[in-house]
Amino acid sequence: MSGEDRFVRRLLSEIPGSPRILVGPGDDAAILDGFPGPWAISTDALVEGVDFLPEHPPEAVGRRAMAVNLSDLAAVGARPEFFLLTVGFPPERGEPFPLAVARGALSRATPAGAGLAGGDLSRSPVAFVSIVVGGRLEGRALRRSGARAGDLLFLSGFPGRAAAGLRLASRNRSRGDAPGLSDADRAELLAAYLDPEPRLDLGRALAREGWATAAIDVSDGLGIDAGRLAEASGLRAVLEADRLPIGAALASFAQRAALDARELALSGGDDYELLFAVAPELEPQIPNTGPGDVPLTRVGRLEEGRGAVLRSAEGDREIGALGYDHLGGAP
Amino acid sequence: MSGEDRFVRRLLSEIPGSPRILVGPGDDAAILDGFPGPWAISTDALVEGVDFLPEHPPEAVGRRAMAVNLSDLAAVGARPEFFLLTVGFPPERGEPFPLAVARGALSRATPAGAGLAGGDLSRSPVAFVSIVVGGRLEGRALRRSGARAGDLLFLSGFPGRAAAGLRLASRNRSRGDAPGLSDADRAELLAAYLDPEPRLDLGRALAREGWATAAIDVSDGLGIDAGRLAEASGLRAVLEADRLPIGAALASFAQRAALDARELALSGGDDYELLFAVAPELEPQIPNTGPGDVPLTRVGRLEEGRGAVLRSAEGDREIGALGYDHLGGAP
Repeated sequence: MSGEDRFVRRLLSEIPGSPRILVGPGDDAAILDGFPGPWAISTDALVEGVDFLPEHPPEAVGRRAMAVNLSDLAAVGARPEFFLLTVGFPPERGEPFPLAVARGALSRATPAGAGLAGGDLSRSPVAFVSIVVGGRLEGRALRRSGARAGDLLFLSGFPGRAAAGLRLASRNRSRGDAPGLSDADRAELLAAYLDPEPRLDLGRALAREGWATAAIDVSDGLGIDAGRLAEASGLRAVLEADRLPIGAALASFAQRAALDARELALSGGDDYELLFAVAPELEPQIPNTGPGDVPLTRVGRLEEGRGAVLRSAEGDREIGALGYDHLGGAP
Repeated sequence: MSGEDRFVRRLLSEIPGSPRILVGPGDDAAILDGFPGPWAISTDALVEGVDFLPEHPPEAVGRRAMAVNLSDLAAVGARPEFFLLTVGFPPERGEPFPLAVARGALSRATPAGAGLAGGDLSRSPVAFVSIVVGGRLEGRALRRSGARAGDLLFLSGFPGRAAAGLRLASRNRSRGDAPGLSDADRAELLAAYLDPEPRLDLGRALAREGWATAAIDVSDGLGIDAGRLAEASGLRAVLEADRLPIGAALASFAQRAALDARELALSGGDDYELLFAVAPELEPQIPNTGPGDVPLTRVGRLEEGRGAVLRSAEGDREIGALGYDHLGGAP
């Protein structure tokens, strides 16, 4: 039996089946049971040294990679049903590496309802994890487009915590040193980066209740992703500086690291919160906290125009480029 | 607009839409129109330096990566409908790199009926291409399991040509030097490696006509993949040495390179031919050439037992480990 066949055998012995997956890993293709109506599929890859650090345990990498992917399903309001997992890794790390990545991915996927349908293992000089998730839509899909001028912008959770966590997790501590930060704050910020919570229940509620006219998950930065939602809707996003929700842990970190908490909130990616547009007449229906007790904050509105700005007493400031550009450095 | 957004915009302007894809690239997830009944999904990743060489043009890499993936749909008898494309690449190569990969992938996907639904771009120190393909089954899926003792084994095309082509394409010419090889033979062998033809029409015919009891695409080597089909079916695969189809170009290459053509045919992967089992009473129905004029050769049979052997006048020889093990070197 080849190493790859042995790997599949070992993994399959650990995981529950899924009614939608008729033939799972181990054949040339997975066979799934279809259904009429719309469904969603998305993919995200994480690369060692770029999206995660070599010192991160592979189980945590797999868990985070799955959360990142599930967040895309959350953003369209889909219910996860299956996933495929591809792991590239240097052969000297051995089979325990992809097995740990898979276990981490399953620790997020199984509670969310997604079963392992298939994947691929490959030797690679640099480790990477590429995941595909698919899920069913119970109503109309949330899209980035669809918002109207005058719609209000809401945000879940506290942006910027993951950016602080990344600095704390980085080997290059000169970027993230925050002397005197409490253990609890440190743990909260690290968890925001290492183990983000995909807002699946919130996304499904937004789609099901018809609350949102548009939505996006904040993966690359609040500024850049607000700009994306605005552009897809043909509008301008206006975030109000004094409405940005800054959590206590981020505020404490920023003060001790001599950084600006608001800048971390605007430019930091990796939080995987949902930014969504709500027609003004529906505002009274939006609860202060969504499913899972995640706070929902009105952070601004959409206007005629283009781009994304932060509005304060000093005027408007362009923020549509604040965040992580995956092709940064490319011409 | 970020580099990734610009990339999606540019690519979308070049490609046809697909009726099954309701929302394509550019949102958080693709939205597809579902249907009742079974469908297939599969994924394969290619890594630079492992599965392709740095000197290969990115368009050829994308085209080959798509063929490799479509071959998995061929092996289960599915009709391609959509794909997702992930490209990791060093930023100094710039946007032209993933764009060329995407164009190459589309050159295979579009004629096969698969539309671009989504994907991901990532910076990476090492280039890689990860593709997911999905397709509809018009009948029962072909699987590796399902063959019965006494079933005959058929093979499409001429295995080993891609292994010869890889040697010719390799920078390390000491492995592949074949002095005096004709230009036509060289071109045929290089094409077999660089631009394999997924046997989609054959796979669909096998499923539709009910000819095959089991099937696999020969991606890692005829020996190892015959062993996989046999193991999934709980049987032993017996290939007959004097029935192996050795093409003229491979024979000429092997002679000039002082290699054994039959060994290349048994251990070489990357041909993406289909190996399939046929109940003996259906043998008269199997044509000599399948769709696209690909020759179909009876190469052996399945017996009670385990593993895969090559049978000749000298007896049986184990061949179930002949081929490429993706986890080779792993404990």
